[in-house]
Amino acid sequence: MNTDFQPRNPGFEPLVRDSFQRQSFMGVLGAQLISVTAGAAEIHVPYREDLLQQHGLFHGGLIGTIADNAGGYATASLLAAGDSVLTVEYKLNLMAPAQGEALISRGQVIRPGRTMTVCRSDVFVLRGGQQHLCATMLGTFMRLAGVSDHDLTARGVSAPNA
Amino acid sequence: MNTDFQPRNPGFEPLVRDSFQRQSFMGVLGAQLISVTAGAAEIHVPYREDLLQQHGLFHGGLIGTIADNAGGYATASLLAAGDSVLTVEYKLNLMAPAQGEALISRGQVIRPGRTMTVCRSDVFVLRGGQQHLCATMLGTFMRLAGVSDHDLTARGVSAPNA
Amino acid sequence: MNTDFQPRNPGFEPLVRDSFQRQSFMGVLGAQLISVTAGAAEIHVPYREDLLQQHGLFHGGLIGTIADNAGGYATASLLAAGDSVLTVEYKLNLMAPAQGEALISRGQVIRPGRTMTVCRSDVFVLRGGQQHLCATMLGTFMRLAGVSDHDLTARGVSAPNA
Amino acid sequence: MNTDFQPRNPGFEPLVRDSFQRQSFMGVLGAQLISVTAGAAEIHVPYREDLLQQHGLFHGGLIGTIADNAGGYATASLLAAGDSVLTVEYKLNLMAPAQGEALISRGQVIRPGRTMTVCRSDVFVLRGGQQHLCATMLGTFMRLAGVSDHDLTARGVSAPNA
Repeated sequence: MNTDFQPRNPGFEPLVRDSFQRQSFMGVLGAQLISVTAGAAEIHVPYREDLLQQHGLFHGGLIGTIADNAGGYATASLLAAGDSVLTVEYKLNLMAPAQGEALISRGQVIRPGRTMTVCRSDVFVLRGGQQHLCATMLGTFMRLAGVSDHDLTARGVSAPNA
Repeated sequence: MNTDFQPRNPGFEPLVRDSFQRQSFMGVLGAQLISVTAGAAEIHVPYREDLLQQHGLFHGGLIGTIADNAGGYATASLLAAGDSVLTVEYKLNLMAPAQGEALISRGQVIRPGRTMTVCRSDVFVLRGGQQHLCATMLGTFMRLAGVSDHDLTARGVSAPNA
Repeated sequence: MNTDFQPRNPGFEPLVRDSFQRQSFMGVLGAQLISVTAGAAEIHVPYREDLLQQHGLFHGGLIGTIADNAGGYATASLLAAGDSVLTVEYKLNLMAPAQGEALISRGQVIRPGRTMTVCRSDVFVLRGGQQHLCATMLGTFMRLAGVSDHDLTARGVSAPNA
Repeated sequence: MNTDFQPRNPGFEPLVRDSFQRQSFMGVLGAQLISVTAGAAEIHVPYREDLLQQHGLFHGGLIGTIADNAGGYATASLLAAGDSVLTVEYKLNLMAPAQGEALISRGQVIRPGRTMTVCRSDVFVLRGGQQHLCATMLGTFMRLAGVSDHDLTARGVSAPNA
């Protein structure tokens, strides 16, 4: 898999970090954007008692949220300055119990395209200092050409089919 | 599509509601289990400023969370009293801007099986009193025979591959 | 679900049928385009001994093929005359043994969009005169604006990311 | 990703090859099982004029078929001698034009489980001697414990929900 991508905007990092900060939902989850490089992003969520499902594991919806987000920001790292990204769809396989001190989601662009970008995210649970793969995502992300996040917020419209 | 399912345990409702209550993540999201019938479940999330993505819409991860959960509890409604359910995988298509007063997720069993159950969830956004379809999910759920939620919690293990 | 779609080109049927005929793979499979209406398409494949998997059932790849195609042509029915459609991705759940006299795939547009259209296909197996649901698909299809099938053939390029 | 799997039956190869040979659909497609190792399988399909879609590319349904099959046989390589495998579901992203001399599908187990195994397949098109990634699959496969392919054929039943 090629992972040596050339970003259109070499100064993508502050734009991606700004977008992440404006996702109020990340604050509720305690999610942190640890790194964003050309075609890749990593998000962490430390353990909290209110992030669990009925068996005391990290909730699958939380896992899906940061898998999707890591793919979206991996995609965003390769866009031009005035563009924006939307999730078209994603599929998540939950593979092992998500029990531990933190979740780590690593998103990676597989195929960047003019309109559509395909990403994979692997999600690990940190337990006793070891990372265990607990889920994997395959998703499709769409570039909105010449429409920045701020434009979209002003318009209040952001879906692929709008 | 057949939607006239016979639950193995006619007294499923309090068990499902108990499981939902023990998902601490639902509390953080303000999610409510509105109804659960044989093969179907409905979950609502009222608008809050901290549930949004960068354009001011409901976050896609939140949409995926309640789509997954509505499918999981639709599945759980058909199980025997001592069984438990796990999400194997799900796929979510985001189709329209999720802007409004509340999210409504309706999960429905398509095909119940001895081990694997397939569900669909449609997610609507309530805006100006009208429901607008904003996402759809197709997912696979697995029965753990003879293993209740409480057993799993005690063992601290809940994944399909455990 | 809204299924009352207005096609941009009321004369879509011969264009869709022409495209289907040019898929040489449909000939190998013995697949027939039974009907195409605004936002829906139906494809049949009669039983043949060389369409099976190792247990003597219709092969899952065949089921996926006509599920994908029924979604693609359901999408195509709503396009303008000069447009073309590509499959971005699809997910298929196999739910019951595909044993019988024929396969029937019914594709249906869930959400038509300017660029992206989301479709569902249900696949039935005909057995003893009864239709049994054996698989369901959820897929994403992309419009290539102003690029006809014939243009693409001449260019020899048809992928979403081209 | 761990790819160093221990097969339960070290003599898996002839069983997998026998199962592949009994898929009559592989013969129609001209598909060849090039290799099967512990947790991986590779399938090739040489170009033929009757395997194409309307733009003269390899048909997406063919791509999905060999992506699914490579995942299924990667799973089968890790099973005990008396077990059998079924596809529960798969998702395919088509990423680039499949134009060339042959298709190559490489399936790989990501997470083997007692009941459920998750696999990825990458599909390449061979063009001018170079392999180009054109599609990727993420799928779920189910073990039928103590039920061989031949048992299933005799029973004529093979679905996850049977």
